[in-house]
Amino acid sequence: MSILVVGTLAFDSVTTPFGERQDALGGSGSFLSAAGAFFGPVQLSSVIGEDFPAEHLEFLRRRQVDVSGVQQLPGKTFRWRGHYPSDTNDAQTLETQLNVLKSFEPHLPASYRRAEWVVLGNVDPELQLRVLEQVERPQLVACDTMNYWIRRSNAQLRATLRRVDLLLVNETEARELSGEHNLLRAAAVIRKMGPRLVVIKRGESGAMLIGDTDTFAIPALPLLNLRDPTGAGDTFAGTMMGYLAAQGRADPPTLRQAVALGAVMASFVVEDFSLDRLRTLGQGEILQRLGHLADLVGFDVNPMRRAVVRQGPVSAVSSL
Amino acid sequence: MSILVVGTLAFDSVTTPFGERQDALGGSGSFLSAAGAFFGPVQLSSVIGEDFPAEHLEFLRRRQVDVSGVQQLPGKTFRWRGHYPSDTNDAQTLETQLNVLKSFEPHLPASYRRAEWVVLGNVDPELQLRVLEQVERPQLVACDTMNYWIRRSNAQLRATLRRVDLLLVNETEARELSGEHNLLRAAAVIRKMGPRLVVIKRGESGAMLIGDTDTFAIPALPLLNLRDPTGAGDTFAGTMMGYLAAQGRADPPTLRQAVALGAVMASFVVEDFSLDRLRTLGQGEILQRLGHLADLVGFDVNPMRRAVVRQGPVSAVSSL
Repeated sequence: MSILVVGTLAFDSVTTPFGERQDALGGSGSFLSAAGAFFGPVQLSSVIGEDFPAEHLEFLRRRQVDVSGVQQLPGKTFRWRGHYPSDTNDAQTLETQLNVLKSFEPHLPASYRRAEWVVLGNVDPELQLRVLEQVERPQLVACDTMNYWIRRSNAQLRATLRRVDLLLVNETEARELSGEHNLLRAAAVIRKMGPRLVVIKRGESGAMLIGDTDTFAIPALPLLNLRDPTGAGDTFAGTMMGYLAAQGRADPPTLRQAVALGAVMASFVVEDFSLDRLRTLGQGEILQRLGHLADLVGFDVNPMRRAVVRQGPVSAVSSL
Repeated sequence: MSILVVGTLAFDSVTTPFGERQDALGGSGSFLSAAGAFFGPVQLSSVIGEDFPAEHLEFLRRRQVDVSGVQQLPGKTFRWRGHYPSDTNDAQTLETQLNVLKSFEPHLPASYRRAEWVVLGNVDPELQLRVLEQVERPQLVACDTMNYWIRRSNAQLRATLRRVDLLLVNETEARELSGEHNLLRAAAVIRKMGPRLVVIKRGESGAMLIGDTDTFAIPALPLLNLRDPTGAGDTFAGTMMGYLAAQGRADPPTLRQAVALGAVMASFVVEDFSLDRLRTLGQGEILQRLGHLADLVGFDVNPMRRAVVRQGPVSAVSSL
């Protein structure tokens, strides 16, 4: 089953404490679709200018990404320039050139309109909604957003959220969108806005999935070699959706697996600039790191249960 | 098997966004021993002034804490006044009155000297060392410290660390002690200073245990009702050591369990001021939250493995 991705294709210029890269392939659409394509076919809706190199589209095509929904417009491709003062996940935006993004009117090819698994990357919520309106009968709609839209286009974002099943936000965004500091309370408020599932991406604190009856949390994989956090969130979301579509379901156990796999794939993409780490990433490495994550969090609860029960008299005495 | 705790007994005055409490029972020794005593007997080495109420010692005694090593000196008990601007784990110290702590010379009763499980709470590293020198043959020595000692008594702390097996620090302390920002690298540097095991307490990001061959991480339990973070770290450490002593071993699986149980017990203590939550905490609640933690982090890695392998051709094609 294919996933439908809407997101930007961009030239990113990034500096981090570990180096810099100029005009590299970036944008939510790149990361979302390259990550999703590890698990199945992807249909990408996006926009590029006349300066977008054929090799980037060719890279995506070879990854089973359908780029027939990528519109080429007169002018320049979207550009972003950012700086990471430390290896946290908060970028400082130094410059944004919207360019062709300003006049982007998404028109989905007929084959895209039957998509069941939809990821709305971090773009103007009006664009997100316009894409969604062209999809006939989506099974699960995931949406990413950012503080900029929460502040500037709150009403439009709320309209989009009413049609979203799964919202992915970071901690700051969850707090700003909900007005609640406590993350459980924040998720509860957001769930009333529409999404029945909320994923809170917490960078080096891991990730949390909050649903109706199920709450899941994983720590971040401890990394020795983080070089560029750009795209971590999109890689996470693209992986989640690619995996759910491949499994053909989004029940709680499968959602947990999707979050864990998203964290694994995100842990790779930050090891190099742009999408470079995804270009060379092989099956064996993914399997190895999956094993690493499973091992990282594993513990046996039964000896603890026995120790607590054995010490029963302590708490009985203490409550005298 | 008993654990030996050295730590302060104090009057804490604390304000948090959720309330305030004046002159409540606090100090690392209180939390360490009250938490450890949930899992077995505790021997407490500490100091109090003439103003320390008998009821606090009586509370500890009823919890199977041996207080024969608590020395009463002329003068006032140690006092700490702190403020938490938000529900993070960083307290602002408003006032510290060392009082009797200034003249504390720990003399361990004979029965304490045979202790095998030793927790050096956050006090002057010289005091920690002086306690340690009186213990005949410790099996595992755990140590807590803070930035104050890292900065002011670095040489003394280093001398103590050479005899420590398990160091518990928060992220900031790990970075400051090691000079490394990356937590894995920080732990590696600290392990060269002596402790073969490093636990990094990360507040609402959970905790990480780094040993020779084993790395373990858990997310924090998401809490709806956090009232006062004071004592979370000591409750964590006391629980870890109480559990290890009860199990009589500190192999990697048992250490993982100790960390998980420590996180569970710490998640209770922050729900109320002072040690109040530990006073009423019963077996059933601990068992329930243990189940909650196990459930929070559980996922099945096998369907993910199959999905990765199934998509083999993708990465093969992509690397062309």
